[in-house]
Amino acid sequence: MASTARDIAMKGGGYYSRATIGAKHVIDGATPLILQSLEDMSPPDDGSVFTMSDMGCADAGTSMTMVGTVLKEVRRRVPSRPIQMVYTDLPRNDFSQLFRNVLGLTDTASYYHEVDNLHVFASGTSFHRSIVPPGTLHLGFSATASHYLSDKPAKIENHVHMVGAAVTERAAYAEQGRRDWEAMLLHRARELAPGGRLALFNFGVDEEGRYLGNTGGISMFDTFNALWTELRDDGTITPREYFDTNFPQHYRTVEEFTRPFRDPDNPVHQAGLRLDHAETRVVRCPFAVHFEEHGDPARFAREYIPTLRSWSESTFASGLSPGRPPKECAAILDCFYDRYEARVRDAPHGHAMDYVHCYLIASKVPA
Amino acid sequence: MASTARDIAMKGGGYYSRATIGAKHVIDGATPLILQSLEDMSPPDDGSVFTMSDMGCADAGTSMTMVGTVLKEVRRRVPSRPIQMVYTDLPRNDFSQLFRNVLGLTDTASYYHEVDNLHVFASGTSFHRSIVPPGTLHLGFSATASHYLSDKPAKIENHVHMVGAAVTERAAYAEQGRRDWEAMLLHRARELAPGGRLALFNFGVDEEGRYLGNTGGISMFDTFNALWTELRDDGTITPREYFDTNFPQHYRTVEEFTRPFRDPDNPVHQAGLRLDHAETRVVRCPFAVHFEEHGDPARFAREYIPTLRSWSESTFASGLSPGRPPKECAAILDCFYDRYEARVRDAPHGHAMDYVHCYLIASKVPA
Repeated sequence: MASTARDIAMKGGGYYSRATIGAKHVIDGATPLILQSLEDMSPPDDGSVFTMSDMGCADAGTSMTMVGTVLKEVRRRVPSRPIQMVYTDLPRNDFSQLFRNVLGLTDTASYYHEVDNLHVFASGTSFHRSIVPPGTLHLGFSATASHYLSDKPAKIENHVHMVGAAVTERAAYAEQGRRDWEAMLLHRARELAPGGRLALFNFGVDEEGRYLGNTGGISMFDTFNALWTELRDDGTITPREYFDTNFPQHYRTVEEFTRPFRDPDNPVHQAGLRLDHAETRVVRCPFAVHFEEHGDPARFAREYIPTLRSWSESTFASGLSPGRPPKECAAILDCFYDRYEARVRDAPHGHAMDYVHCYLIASKVPA
Repeated sequence: MASTARDIAMKGGGYYSRATIGAKHVIDGATPLILQSLEDMSPPDDGSVFTMSDMGCADAGTSMTMVGTVLKEVRRRVPSRPIQMVYTDLPRNDFSQLFRNVLGLTDTASYYHEVDNLHVFASGTSFHRSIVPPGTLHLGFSATASHYLSDKPAKIENHVHMVGAAVTERAAYAEQGRRDWEAMLLHRARELAPGGRLALFNFGVDEEGRYLGNTGGISMFDTFNALWTELRDDGTITPREYFDTNFPQHYRTVEEFTRPFRDPDNPVHQAGLRLDHAETRVVRCPFAVHFEEHGDPARFAREYIPTLRSWSESTFASGLSPGRPPKECAAILDCFYDRYEARVRDAPHGHAMDYVHCYLIASKVPA
């Protein structure tokens, strides 16, 4: 699975979480949906193990508050049941940082000591595969991770992201996105206990065509593309490098997200997964909100660029020729983000990495 | 828990496993004991989850062959049961390297793709605490880890290790060792399913008084102490630094290992843990064996010292004053191990880090 945002977690020390405070807002704001799903599930207090998972957890920082709230509610509802909390991500994730955060050994506040009979685990298994044994998952959570594709389906000729791709290119991304989404849901369908719930909050394209960094102002991905094109046109990078730079992501529409649940012929529907709730929300870019308060364009630009760079840099880096010395690559990337910062500083209004998510709650049919 | 050997795993890239090939021999040689315990357990093929743990796993390299052999036998015996393999170590362990090794993404051969319906997890919870939910563990394994104490009980005035401590000092180590061992066993007693098994292979003192690196030739720990004393006496380190350098380890006797199982008043016995098998073995130092073949003292010295350094360096480093610049510390440690290497090169015979382990198989009383 090509999961560039995950690389950032390797920088450790909470860097990922600080750069993605907006991603935390997304999860925190949707916590009531998860609590409602728990109430609907109404798990019996029968002493059996209760398992929750966070799939694509990075360093666990963005979901920490939500997981704590939910597990305390699980503990209150079913005091007799041991709780297993399973954090999953790709093998290259910094699991050591994750354990330190969750076990309360860093300055990140953790719920760990406030929930008794709690057992924390990590898994390095991709969510495109089976993670926990069949029928043992009660509450599966995943946020801001499923847009990463397991395979890059095509080169995008005149853009860096599928949101700017030509029709046939885009269709290839949609098809890979469809297969990955169905595979992911099918594995979860098998893992869920009867009546178990899924809470999946993912980047998508909403009913008004909005998506991450494109909510009416200046499009972030178009800016990425314009600046990368500029570097190509002034000879800093080669046409080949420009061509080789594509985010391995698909932003699904609500229709694409929900089809596997609704279509009675779809294997996901047949495996017993049903949609309980679907909605889209826009969560405002915290840096743009902050700029409205302080009004300093230079400060906004300085604080805003790192949050973009945190998840996009590895994609631009991977487009560069393997033959380039590391120092040269670093200089190109610095130049690229410096130019983005200059653009924001010179004309700040309209820049914002607003989050556009599709929020789904699904359940496995009861036994 | 002070677990200095674990630090080495942070160096990643299989360094720990290569430096501890002897530790792998210990585990491989005792695999028949584990297979026998599995046969004695005779798990029913009832479709329920079967859980094995490796507690203190480092990068999983030393136990890989054994775990593969055992899980294939579990799969053969109970084809209907999903298998959970839980690797545990302290949070600072390199879990990313562990997942890469176990999932078959490195050049370490792994069993992962040869056992179906297998689910691999990691835990960063110390084995002095509860790791898996009560009653859910079927086969708990731990090797060469329980000699690390959760707390350093006393300073040893004239030696660096409890094997050379004065009587009262040694008693303090024995007491901390007793408490840690009982706590470890009690947690396992609660975790084990009825009829579940433990396989615990740990450094100890055998019936003839032998222990790691002390099997009739030149004592490794006495050599460590002599060289550290030399550095104190020539002013390279201070008397305070010498005094502050103690391995946080206790090497238990067979009597100490087995008492909690045998004594009917002991909480471990009362929790239902029974001893099925106890023995000690000496596994010869692979570098000394190799020296017998090639006969080159310089080569022996060069190949032998890294295996000692891999697990001992952090203890000597932690004895040095926090005020010393890192470069100075590195120079002192280089000098220390260089002197050890010179000793071996100049008079190789009798040097050997032979492994002395106590091998225990225990079971939880059936329901």
